[in-house]
Amino acid sequence: MMDEKDAQVLMRTASAELTSRQSITHPQQPARRAVMARTAAVAAGMVAGGAKAASLAVPESNLRPGTPIPENEYGLPSKFEAKVKRHRTNVFVNKQNFSDWSFTPLAQQHGIVTPNGLIYERHHNGVPEIDPEQHRFAIHGMVRQPLVFTMSDLMRYPSVSRFYFMECSGNGLADWLKPASKTVQQTHGMLSCTQWTGVPLSALLDEAGVLPTATWGLAEGADGSAHSRSIPMKKLLDDALLVYAAGGEMLRAENGYPLRLFVPGWEGNVSIKWLRRLKLGDQPWNLRSETARYTDPMPNGKWRQFSFEMEAKSVITAPSGDMRVKPGPMEIVGFAWSGVGKIKAVDVTLDGGKTWRQATLEEPVMDKCLTRFRLRWNWDGTPTKIASRAVDSTGYVQPTVEQIQKVRAITGFVQHHNAIFPWSINAAGEVANAIA
Amino acid sequence: MMDEKDAQVLMRTASAELTSRQSITHPQQPARRAVMARTAAVAAGMVAGGAKAASLAVPESNLRPGTPIPENEYGLPSKFEAKVKRHRTNVFVNKQNFSDWSFTPLAQQHGIVTPNGLIYERHHNGVPEIDPEQHRFAIHGMVRQPLVFTMSDLMRYPSVSRFYFMECSGNGLADWLKPASKTVQQTHGMLSCTQWTGVPLSALLDEAGVLPTATWGLAEGADGSAHSRSIPMKKLLDDALLVYAAGGEMLRAENGYPLRLFVPGWEGNVSIKWLRRLKLGDQPWNLRSETARYTDPMPNGKWRQFSFEMEAKSVITAPSGDMRVKPGPMEIVGFAWSGVGKIKAVDVTLDGGKTWRQATLEEPVMDKCLTRFRLRWNWDGTPTKIASRAVDSTGYVQPTVEQIQKVRAITGFVQHHNAIFPWSINAAGEVANAIA
Repeated sequence: MMDEKDAQVLMRTASAELTSRQSITHPQQPARRAVMARTAAVAAGMVAGGAKAASLAVPESNLRPGTPIPENEYGLPSKFEAKVKRHRTNVFVNKQNFSDWSFTPLAQQHGIVTPNGLIYERHHNGVPEIDPEQHRFAIHGMVRQPLVFTMSDLMRYPSVSRFYFMECSGNGLADWLKPASKTVQQTHGMLSCTQWTGVPLSALLDEAGVLPTATWGLAEGADGSAHSRSIPMKKLLDDALLVYAAGGEMLRAENGYPLRLFVPGWEGNVSIKWLRRLKLGDQPWNLRSETARYTDPMPNGKWRQFSFEMEAKSVITAPSGDMRVKPGPMEIVGFAWSGVGKIKAVDVTLDGGKTWRQATLEEPVMDKCLTRFRLRWNWDGTPTKIASRAVDSTGYVQPTVEQIQKVRAITGFVQHHNAIFPWSINAAGEVANAIA
Repeated sequence: MMDEKDAQVLMRTASAELTSRQSITHPQQPARRAVMARTAAVAAGMVAGGAKAASLAVPESNLRPGTPIPENEYGLPSKFEAKVKRHRTNVFVNKQNFSDWSFTPLAQQHGIVTPNGLIYERHHNGVPEIDPEQHRFAIHGMVRQPLVFTMSDLMRYPSVSRFYFMECSGNGLADWLKPASKTVQQTHGMLSCTQWTGVPLSALLDEAGVLPTATWGLAEGADGSAHSRSIPMKKLLDDALLVYAAGGEMLRAENGYPLRLFVPGWEGNVSIKWLRRLKLGDQPWNLRSETARYTDPMPNGKWRQFSFEMEAKSVITAPSGDMRVKPGPMEIVGFAWSGVGKIKAVDVTLDGGKTWRQATLEEPVMDKCLTRFRLRWNWDGTPTKIASRAVDSTGYVQPTVEQIQKVRAITGFVQHHNAIFPWSINAAGEVANAIA
């Protein structure tokens, strides 16, 4: 423990006049000197008030035993973090709670791995409870040999573990033309990322023997909505996985336990949860989820089917909506991702789009995976707007809403919103949704 | 949902004589044909017994709504996975429960990220409860300017997120010369891996102004044992982090909430949890944890201090102790890691060490991080021993117990056990700890 002499030295030093360290401040690190002044002030405060001086004394927690380890345990977050939850309610109250969604608290996420308890949800008729011993998965239709698998069959196959993001096609649908939501959890929280483990679907399709006529597959879930989607064979044979684990452990019930399809980089709703069958055919099934939903209105009044790929997108998660910042140094952080490759660059504007600076991308930068970007900023207190713009490995640049409007009609709650998303900061440091 | 015609086709096909698909089986994929025969048998079983035939009917879960999403939630594992917990008890019962440990269920871990609820624990006097608003971290001793930080100070600094393993130096200490533990959770479970987020300590040391005389730092925790360790300045200035988040969220209480030191690649006990101060000095403090504990006996009767680096190591996690396997195709999987670099290769023996085959390393392969290795195997039912051997980027090869004994004395519960670890498989397919 800190002895009395140590504490006295700290107190004494803190009460002395504090001078800045004589060192060269690196021009790309404007944060240091200012932060230093601030922390020095904290130290100085130690003697100004009794409460702060006491903070350097040996804390209560050093003076008594803590809580012992239970015999068997699955740990939970600190009680001081109880506010960090996935939230069901966005801007409008969804009264049809069985067809529902919840949002990942992106502003509180550190790094690129979403905690298993916070992965966003989208269900069409609630979460089924499925006993893995009873679950079966069938491949049938245009195959030489229909096959049925138990979970223990599937788990004996050679497997892979891959980091991928997952995003709902409806992510951001309330915030196209004017602000509707406040926080980044609400505007972008149908987005998560983890390491998925399972069997490459190509291995099982190879075994079943795909007939040359087969060009589409129908994947169906064992949930109360029997949620189903048509998926081109080319993608199923490319990188689609039969996933049984995520984030280091077996899937959570709400994420498809015991088995889901995972279609990397594509809209989340084709990664069918609680997967029970895949039927091969020679055309799409044109389900309601492919005619009335998950389609994009065009300027000519027609609707485009099958916008599977989630195109490059990014968002600043801190500072973000409903936060309050102070003038001085801070780090701007956010996520960038692309359903068609790796993130190549992220530009950030700090002046409402007049100029753009390149942010630092944090390794590892992986294909179809969330990528962290970071940029140091010294805010001078002037009201402004900040936003990020992603560029992916195909050269595609994240568009503005105006650019999207040239090829699509933005009417009501429209899917596939990957536009640049600005936050405003007012003179009081209040950060707000500034989409317009 | 699957219509009646689909179900009939599946039933009919399953009852027909099944012939192997006419295709070239890749010689490196012996699993496929055999697995195919097995799954075909499952399909055939559909008509042999009513129960199995019924399994292809529409399941109960398709016929009713599932559970709606709660308003706010932090999700939990499926009830069918309730057995996957970290366990306190190893082979001997620790009656002094305040100085305790728990083990990560490595055999049930998929991918390289340990779920936050399953990260292993080692505490010297229980888990303290610390309010982040009240917590302070001080840098003092041989510095130009002592500094005290609040958590909100620290969280404004530029941060990094990095994937690293963490391993207790005592991992495996009961299993040097003869089998004591059964499962890989017991033999190797004081090992976890996640993405850690925090502030590079070098930035704060730079700000405090390290005096030229300072060569060591003393890190101290705010727990009931005030657990402390001496750490060379060189490492503190290299890649040590002040960590406040892991696995995508703020640290769990048992992993140091709200702040811990993280010393990449080094024995876990120097990554001081609940970190409250770092004092710089010109020599190590020679604490009890550095003279009576965390030291290695040598053949000459002396004890070696400061074996900080966790040298290259690996273990097969499946099949592993207390599992039962069947003859036929399976995938051997395991973890390899090194505290001094990346894993370069992992060799696996399937015949008790006579021959070794190179396993596949799964990307991403990261510095000081768990790496997954995989190897396909078709077990013919003959009793055997299997083991893995890691090679890291420095060229270091994971040693045998015999090789370690040439430079160290293995007496009782000795630390830093990174030897090759074999599992035996008997004729019944029972897998057991085969260290000897």
